[in-house]
Formats: sequence, C-alpha cells, structure tokens
Amino acid sequence: MTIELYYWLGLPGRGEYARLVLEAAGAPYREMAQLSSEEGGGMDAMMGWLDGRQGPFIPFAPPFLKDGEVVVSQAGLIAAYLGEKLGLAPQNEAERHFARSVALTTADFVAEVHNVHHPIATGLYYDDQKEEARRNAEQFRAERMPKFLGWYERLITANPAGAGFLVGGRMSYADLGLFQTVEGLNYAFPRRMETLGKTVPRVVSLCRRIAAEPMVKRYLESERRQPFNEDGIFRHYPELDGA
Amino acid sequence: MTIELYYWLGLPGRGEYARLVLEAAGAPYREMAQLSSEEGGGMDAMMGWLDGRQGPFIPFAPPFLKDGEVVVSQAGLIAAYLGEKLGLAPQNEAERHFARSVALTTADFVAEVHNVHHPIATGLYYDDQKEEARRNAEQFRAERMPKFLGWYERLITANPAGAGFLVGGRMSYADLGLFQTVEGLNYAFPRRMETLGKTVPRVVSLCRRIAAEPMVKRYLESERRQPFNEDGIFRHYPELDGA
Repeated sequence: MTIELYYWLGLPGRGEYARLVLEAAGAPYREMAQLSSEEGGGMDAMMGWLDGRQGPFIPFAPPFLKDGEVVVSQAGLIAAYLGEKLGLAPQNEAERHFARSVALTTADFVAEVHNVHHPIATGLYYDDQKEEARRNAEQFRAERMPKFLGWYERLITANPAGAGFLVGGRMSYADLGLFQTVEGLNYAFPRRMETLGKTVPRVVSLCRRIAAEPMVKRYLESERRQPFNEDGIFRHYPELDGA
Repeated sequence: MTIELYYWLGLPGRGEYARLVLEAAGAPYREMAQLSSEEGGGMDAMMGWLDGRQGPFIPFAPPFLKDGEVVVSQAGLIAAYLGEKLGLAPQNEAERHFARSVALTTADFVAEVHNVHHPIATGLYYDDQKEEARRNAEQFRAERMPKFLGWYERLITANPAGAGFLVGGRMSYADLGLFQTVEGLNYAFPRRMETLGKTVPRVVSLCRRIAAEPMVKRYLESERRQPFNEDGIFRHYPELDGA
C-alpha cells in the first residue's frame, strides 16, 4: 500500500521533513492534500482525519502519515518512522535510538524558528507582534542558532564512524532533517548564516553532500520541491536578520 | 543494568515525564544528578554527557536516559522508550505508533506552556518579558488550552477500546504524560482549569483514575515526587491566569 502524506498546501513547512526522506529513499507516496477528491485526497480528506471522521487515530495537526493501518503524526517522528522503514536509519540499536533523539531535537529547533516571528500567538499576524519578534530574533541569532548548530557540529566531530554524518556511518533521516533546517535558516537568516556557517564547517559540508546525493538532487530540481515563503516556518523578514 | 535518568535538580520539569513511567512500572532507576560523584552521579557526571566527555551520543539537553548502550533524549521519546520497554504501552503495532504521536504532541503542548512565561527569550528573566507573557497567556488560555485539552477528550471518546484511555485498552505512558500536564496546568492556571475542566470530563476522569493507580499513588505520596515551582515549566503567576 502506498504511503499517504497529509500536509497543508502552499508551503514546504514541517511536511518537508517527511517528504525529503520519502524522496531520498525513492519510495512511492501520495501527497494527499494535493490530490482531488476523486483520487481520495483533497483538503476535505485531510480535515476528515483531524476531526475524527476517518477513525480513532486523530492527529493533532499536519503533517501526518498513513501507512496501511499505521497513522503517525509529528514531523520528527514521521521522519524516524520512514527512515527506519526505508533504509535511511542506522542499523545498530543504540544508534537508532539516538538518531530519533536528534530528529526530535531538530523538531524543537524548528519550533523555536517559528516562535521567532510568532512569539506572542500563532493565531495573530506577524504585523501584530513585530516588535516582540524583533526582540526574540535578537536572542535567537545570538544564542539559540549557535547553540543548536554547534551541537550538530559536535555530533559530527564525535561520531566514531568518522564519515561526516550525525549518527552512524551513512546518511540517515537525522541528516536530512538538519539539511532542511539549514536550508530554511539560509533562507530566513542569510546574513547570520554567512557568519555562523564559518564556525560549523562540518555541518556546512554535510549539507552540501546531501544536496548532491543523486536522489536528493533529483528531488530538489523537481517541481515537487516547494520554495520557502512567508506563509511557512522559515520566513525571510530582513528586519529579523543580522550578522 | 539499572536505568539512569539525568535531569536538573530542584524542579519536576520535563524529567517528570520519564519519572512517572518508571514509577508506574515499578522499575528501578538511578536519578543521576541527585547522586554523589562517589556513586557515579552528580552534576559533573550529567554535564560530562552534555559536553561530550562521556561519548559520542551527546544529548542537546536534559532530560536524557542511559539504559546500557542506549542513550535517549527528548521527554516524549524517553517516555515512549520506557513505556514500550516496561509494559506501559499498547501492544498492537498501530496503537504503539499512535501512542508515540500523542506523547510527542504532549511535549509540544508543554513547550507552549513554557513559551507563555518566556515568549521573548529563555535566557531572560520572566520580569524582563512580563508584558509579552501577559499577551501570550491570553491567547494560550483562550485558544491553545481548549484546543489541546479538547483533542485529548476526543481521543478518549473515539478510542474503540472504550476504557477511558487515550490509546488502547489500558494505561500507557501517553496517559501518564497527559496526567502530568494537567497537574501542571492545575498548578499554573487554576482559575482557567476550573472552567475548562467542565468541558473535558473524560480527561478529568482519566487523570483522577491515574492518580489513584496504586503505583502512581505511592509515588505521588513519596518524597521523590517534587512539587511544582516557579523555576520550572509550569509556573503559577496569578497575573497570567484567568477564568
């Protein structure tokens, strides 16, 4: 049965963390919200899950995934589920567990990125919380970005496999999650990333290698890859950026 | 080998989501930061993990857990790992995956609780962001609390096992996570919870039953159970509460 991915239309968002694993593995999947109702998809099909019409496994929010009887929500967990199923996860048990921890920490980092432009309320517009966003962005650039990116750098450095990945000796969903996050940060905070990138050369190198992986490259060059925009998590508001 | 739990001293915090599963299962564990260095614990032992002296599995932040060769961080993931290992998780594969999704959504809810009193920066004091916290709390009480609590209520209602739990027919780590979160909300937002509790009777009933479970009850009455306080995630600032 083909894997079904449910996510909002018009932004890469958290759905991209699932999509990248599916694409890197070359797995067939159906992007449900983009399909018509005749094809079993559409927004109403997605909302049917969220309001309980589709069964007792009610996700709190997109993205979520249906694979046969299994329903998984939460971007980091979906990536882990797919990575482990599709061969993009470490084999060793301890590494498998730690890769999950890394992917979920990335999900926390992404939530902090969202809080930068929506520190007061997700339900309010950015314009209604611009001044607070400016203050949040200051500490995010000064403290949180170096802390998270420095942590990834240390993981790569400490990884005994020595192959330049976060966990284990080959590319996993944890690496793909870092890649997407760094891409998003490059879009949202280009000035900050230019200075910060120099301090995390292993992270930069890993992201470059991931972009060049044949399956990933093919996806990034396809029409399926959606650009970042100011409806998503990673938003480029120049007033929130700074070296 | 005894499970080792690492968490900050002096607050229940996110460590409590792991502790409750260990206690409900009656599993032996060592609370590492509370031990002396002679016993292999203490703050330096915990910091050793965070700065990479203990090996390549470097957690981003406490809580984290060591079980033999396995290192797991992220509160929701730790709870899932422990629940699945210790018999406090659904048996059925689809339910096991969905329980993980629920526990991680609870972790997101907890992160939003923290953002209420620290909307601008975790590194600043509450007093430096009081006005922003007041604005954040307004939307949190009006929109986010009913949305999350209503979702748990719908999960219990829709659960085909009909036994009043979130997933499956018996208590799991997902239920324990909800219990701890509701306890925290009762502490932090007593006025809001008094009105909101009436709208989620199944959630209230589940939390009452969990508190009465013999193993949980014994733990809650023990000295090991730490009270909430204003250093933690759930803080009682009367100015942020309201019916």
